[in-house]
Amino acid sequence: MTKRKICVVVASRPNYGRAKYIMKAIEEHPDLELQLVVGASTLLYRFGKAVDIIEKDGFKPLRKIYYVVEGETPSTQAKSTGLGIVELSSVFEDLRPDIILTVADRFETIATAIASVYMNIPLAHLQGGEISGNIDERVRHSITKLADVHFPSSEDARQRLLKMGEDPEMVFNYGCPAMDILANEDLSISNERMANYGGVGTPLDWTKPYILVLQHPVTTSYGQGFQQMSQTLSAVKEFSKIQKVVLWPNIDAGTDDVSKGIRVFREKNMDLPFHYFRNFSPEDYARVLKNASCLVGNSSSFIREASFLGVPSVIVGDRQEGREHGKNVAFANYDQQEIYAQIEKQLAAGRYESDPIFGKGDAGKRIADKLATIQIPKKKRLTY
Amino acid sequence: MTKRKICVVVASRPNYGRAKYIMKAIEEHPDLELQLVVGASTLLYRFGKAVDIIEKDGFKPLRKIYYVVEGETPSTQAKSTGLGIVELSSVFEDLRPDIILTVADRFETIATAIASVYMNIPLAHLQGGEISGNIDERVRHSITKLADVHFPSSEDARQRLLKMGEDPEMVFNYGCPAMDILANEDLSISNERMANYGGVGTPLDWTKPYILVLQHPVTTSYGQGFQQMSQTLSAVKEFSKIQKVVLWPNIDAGTDDVSKGIRVFREKNMDLPFHYFRNFSPEDYARVLKNASCLVGNSSSFIREASFLGVPSVIVGDRQEGREHGKNVAFANYDQQEIYAQIEKQLAAGRYESDPIFGKGDAGKRIADKLATIQIPKKKRLTY
Amino acid sequence: MTKRKICVVVASRPNYGRAKYIMKAIEEHPDLELQLVVGASTLLYRFGKAVDIIEKDGFKPLRKIYYVVEGETPSTQAKSTGLGIVELSSVFEDLRPDIILTVADRFETIATAIASVYMNIPLAHLQGGEISGNIDERVRHSITKLADVHFPSSEDARQRLLKMGEDPEMVFNYGCPAMDILANEDLSISNERMANYGGVGTPLDWTKPYILVLQHPVTTSYGQGFQQMSQTLSAVKEFSKIQKVVLWPNIDAGTDDVSKGIRVFREKNMDLPFHYFRNFSPEDYARVLKNASCLVGNSSSFIREASFLGVPSVIVGDRQEGREHGKNVAFANYDQQEIYAQIEKQLAAGRYESDPIFGKGDAGKRIADKLATIQIPKKKRLTY
Amino acid sequence: MTKRKICVVVASRPNYGRAKYIMKAIEEHPDLELQLVVGASTLLYRFGKAVDIIEKDGFKPLRKIYYVVEGETPSTQAKSTGLGIVELSSVFEDLRPDIILTVADRFETIATAIASVYMNIPLAHLQGGEISGNIDERVRHSITKLADVHFPSSEDARQRLLKMGEDPEMVFNYGCPAMDILANEDLSISNERMANYGGVGTPLDWTKPYILVLQHPVTTSYGQGFQQMSQTLSAVKEFSKIQKVVLWPNIDAGTDDVSKGIRVFREKNMDLPFHYFRNFSPEDYARVLKNASCLVGNSSSFIREASFLGVPSVIVGDRQEGREHGKNVAFANYDQQEIYAQIEKQLAAGRYESDPIFGKGDAGKRIADKLATIQIPKKKRLTY
Repeated sequence: MTKRKICVVVASRPNYGRAKYIMKAIEEHPDLELQLVVGASTLLYRFGKAVDIIEKDGFKPLRKIYYVVEGETPSTQAKSTGLGIVELSSVFEDLRPDIILTVADRFETIATAIASVYMNIPLAHLQGGEISGNIDERVRHSITKLADVHFPSSEDARQRLLKMGEDPEMVFNYGCPAMDILANEDLSISNERMANYGGVGTPLDWTKPYILVLQHPVTTSYGQGFQQMSQTLSAVKEFSKIQKVVLWPNIDAGTDDVSKGIRVFREKNMDLPFHYFRNFSPEDYARVLKNASCLVGNSSSFIREASFLGVPSVIVGDRQEGREHGKNVAFANYDQQEIYAQIEKQLAAGRYESDPIFGKGDAGKRIADKLATIQIPKKKRLTY
Repeated sequence: MTKRKICVVVASRPNYGRAKYIMKAIEEHPDLELQLVVGASTLLYRFGKAVDIIEKDGFKPLRKIYYVVEGETPSTQAKSTGLGIVELSSVFEDLRPDIILTVADRFETIATAIASVYMNIPLAHLQGGEISGNIDERVRHSITKLADVHFPSSEDARQRLLKMGEDPEMVFNYGCPAMDILANEDLSISNERMANYGGVGTPLDWTKPYILVLQHPVTTSYGQGFQQMSQTLSAVKEFSKIQKVVLWPNIDAGTDDVSKGIRVFREKNMDLPFHYFRNFSPEDYARVLKNASCLVGNSSSFIREASFLGVPSVIVGDRQEGREHGKNVAFANYDQQEIYAQIEKQLAAGRYESDPIFGKGDAGKRIADKLATIQIPKKKRLTY
Repeated sequence: MTKRKICVVVASRPNYGRAKYIMKAIEEHPDLELQLVVGASTLLYRFGKAVDIIEKDGFKPLRKIYYVVEGETPSTQAKSTGLGIVELSSVFEDLRPDIILTVADRFETIATAIASVYMNIPLAHLQGGEISGNIDERVRHSITKLADVHFPSSEDARQRLLKMGEDPEMVFNYGCPAMDILANEDLSISNERMANYGGVGTPLDWTKPYILVLQHPVTTSYGQGFQQMSQTLSAVKEFSKIQKVVLWPNIDAGTDDVSKGIRVFREKNMDLPFHYFRNFSPEDYARVLKNASCLVGNSSSFIREASFLGVPSVIVGDRQEGREHGKNVAFANYDQQEIYAQIEKQLAAGRYESDPIFGKGDAGKRIADKLATIQIPKKKRLTY
Repeated sequence: MTKRKICVVVASRPNYGRAKYIMKAIEEHPDLELQLVVGASTLLYRFGKAVDIIEKDGFKPLRKIYYVVEGETPSTQAKSTGLGIVELSSVFEDLRPDIILTVADRFETIATAIASVYMNIPLAHLQGGEISGNIDERVRHSITKLADVHFPSSEDARQRLLKMGEDPEMVFNYGCPAMDILANEDLSISNERMANYGGVGTPLDWTKPYILVLQHPVTTSYGQGFQQMSQTLSAVKEFSKIQKVVLWPNIDAGTDDVSKGIRVFREKNMDLPFHYFRNFSPEDYARVLKNASCLVGNSSSFIREASFLGVPSVIVGDRQEGREHGKNVAFANYDQQEIYAQIEKQLAAGRYESDPIFGKGDAGKRIADKLATIQIPKKKRLTY
């Protein structure tokens, strides 16, 4: 019997964190063959070249495709999507997968979805049905409408997909495969293990307390990223006794502004205990999350992974507005005082209990099993 | 007060039939300014160069953009979408409209939608919420999820949009503006009026009975268009006493197959009373529809306009499967015998009563009025 | 020893006629591996789908790439070049050839050249150094400046390349490989052999005299193709006793006009002895050329192949202006009377002697041998 | 009389330095209208956003077009060219210039050239005919073959264009317009004037001696940029008494490597007297050049502007190999020792006399005058 070819398109650093355990499970499955395509910001130095980590983890991309039009303006995001469709349709024509798997909700993802649909290749979508406060939300639901099979990450998300008219036999809540990393790996941290990441800033001792900062631009408030980032960095600066670990943001309209916020802050505060990194492997990122005293910013991992790990987080601004979350999450506006107050509260609260709303850590294997056997109807119908 | 700039993107022949009365109403509205962009198959000779008719009607396109990648294969449809996004984002950057209006459900339409959304320009969508039996359906719902404001064409479609979680305050059923043409124009036909269209085939007398044939390729059964078209043409050929008017199909994956079906048929039946046309103005197309004895094929106008006009139609195959329709519609599979039988039945039935399910002929004006005043929230939320 | 990978990009019908014997010789060479890429109009029905013939000849394309932006306007020709570069760079990244071979002088060719040069892959160019009367000439010389190795088709062309500053050790006049077909195949014609081509028009007897017409649009006089074609067809129509074989033109800005000229003429002259074809295999095209009584139009084959074959030709207009040619060629302006007079003269003259200016029929093999051993310097230098 | 519309495409920081005085002269000319298009790296933060300086200088771009595909690999350079052609053809279609002016020899430039030529718009080319040691050389000559009118920067370059077969009536050596800045502006430097540029590093006193370093990646030795940059920085570091000003490189395949070389060096040498800048206005760059004690790297300005200014320079590596130069230039391989020795020699030599080989500082006006009156033949012919 020929194996089913599952093409996974990994197009950003967070994509990989979500897809990794699915990819592993596909490779280990006797009836499946993995066709890995990496593209967009995974290949770019400015965004941490996640492809290096992917390859170090032993995965072999069949194609590396560049389609980010530089500029991080609203129009370049559209253009990147367009160029992505042009490139991906050639890749799919060449690889002829049986199913294409796409992750989450960004422009790289809808490029994959559109190319799949017009080429009549069944599309599986990871993490549909969630709500949040960004342009990403409408793109996410739009991809849902293009996809054949859905792997939402929570019961809440599953229910929302059904309300949107998706066929219940094509919707499977196995949790988020990013939790698999948390459940299956030894997440203890040490300076030895983290030594290779370099980064810049004053010396950092990973075994001592630190606050982790990761704040992405928000496309619907394009142009305000510099100001938003500055508020956050000024707030965390106040906690002078505790180390700060800052990650550079994702590629998005507005990334330059946020990055500039970091650079300007850094130049003025060279002597303070801040350390800046571009990227971690998913496992090491999990370690960094788990061992943080508090998480500050707007990364969705501060809601999802943090719920599973029970790490207190302060979500800044509206990028995650309305997203389902556990008890470990506090919210603040883009305001230095407010952010400061919430961090203080969370540091006092300390570690929370683990919350299983985003899965139990076996999503990757269950998704691969389902992909191996599912019969996907050629025509898609709404349920109403 | 500055006028609201409404950018209408007309990207195919049927797009124009739908948008025309909206464009007219926008031009006549004191608070609105029309920014007309024409693109894709409207510019192409093979698809009847609808742009010539648009300009003859007095509209002045601000931009003409070419983005059809030739080939009509699944992958070129994807590539055309991608190229369309690249081109349209530059156009929108340049024109800076307040609202973009996009029509229906094809690859030209989703290109418009994606460019709008990533550029943070509010998007109005005409004809969402309908169901049909093609790839177009999932694309249509996908565009719904990207759009801010919806102008569905029937109550059934409006209800479906609400179920999909769209905000009721952003959904307006004013009927389909294609009905405006039917309600407002003198639809009597004469040989003089139609003399300029040329076309090829034996002489045609428009005042005598004729069957109208228009059958598009079906992307989910790519490769079968030649065979499907041949069945239909063989069936209508049997009605030897009545004239036949055949229209070339829309651009789509598979157009070449269908066109070849027509060409091969024509070469073998040069002496029979068939006449072949590339294009009509929306009004003249309405005349051709209204005065036909029977409509055969899979054009959605055979369901929509025909319901309003009460003209009997025979829908062939599954392209319109599940679509709401009036009593004037009969269905047949891609089978010469079955098609023949349904046509015979419909010719016997004769004219039906007009059915208002797709509107009363005032949609264009009501849509323009709404676009002039509506306040569109910056963030879009599902209702659940 | 690993074989040298030679990537041949065939992007139009005439490209294949030129490249075929090189491709054959590469496949047969012990030290070479052929990487065949077909693209652009070779894949399109409107241009005769040369890919079908290529595959029937036993070649297996590694990639089929669509990059013609439909419209045949000046801007779509530019856009097709741009899209071609985007697509070809991905193909070359994937195939990693040692040398890329590109043919002649059109937009498909410069796309190949630019992608090669920016990817640091040595580029061999077939048919540089010639002069002619079209936009193609400057593109041809532009490709010369990008290419590393040159295979001009005549001594005159070789001399011109040297004057332009190309390194004499990288310029090889082995003649035009299109002559190889003429020298190596049995070019007798029969109705049986030609029966499969179909075409449209009145019955044709290939064993009786016929005039062959092939006239391409001229991009520098965009918009006049209809008129130009009409003059030619009216002129040949006068020779009522002899059959006429008409070929549809190449894809180019202006193709629609020329095609319309043919269609309009045809509809008005259905009963006259004209027959219309889309495409022939290179061998069958050679048969059609060789057995014609006279060639009329502006195809470069009417100069090159016709010189070798000694067939009289009448070159219409300025598309081939200044091109080196044999005694068999007469010239006429776009003027019915003048064209008529030249044809009459050529029919009276009859067959000419073979002229070896474009080679002796062994070019394919000699080019392959050279590609197998040549050492190409990494840096290219002008000789002055 | 309608004015001639001259479209100038400025697509990189150095482009602007060359085009500025032409743009000024076009704006001041009674018979000319400037259509300014800015694109590619001029819009990008990483490359100093030259557009900000262009606008501060009072120029108003009609279009800003993003077409850099991020990655700085060989294939993204090709893709950027392709995307540039797609975008520029739409811009030219819209602006309909009478003549397009393109500058120098990089991928942004050939994109402009190809779009112009396929759209039948006359093309003027600045700085053709020069030789150098990079992929740029063949691109430069390739653009020459596409262009109608040539404005080389030196007699040597003019002679080379004539040898290449260009029509002498279309070739004008008015010198390089970058010299206009040097001849017409007050180039004295002060700390006040330079205060706004920021940059990073230890405090810098512009009135004290400094060495200027600017080293671009060399596309034909892609992958070695880190190593090459490190050699240079290590060499200049030895001159511990004199300040060092380092500029980030141009966008090119390999930029990331060179930038990394700078960043790594910087992190290790935070306390040394190095200062790093992204960008200067053309005038301030001229000031920085003029007042330097020595120039080190491979910028062409170290040959051209430096000849006019008489500033000693050390050209590292082969990027400028074979380029015409004045007495002020010394050469070194990518070797720390050799670079050190040449700098030492040049510092000892001190200021040279001004050399007029690249013009006298009136090129901008003379070029504009010529563009206002020149009659460009529709067809281009080689002279042999």
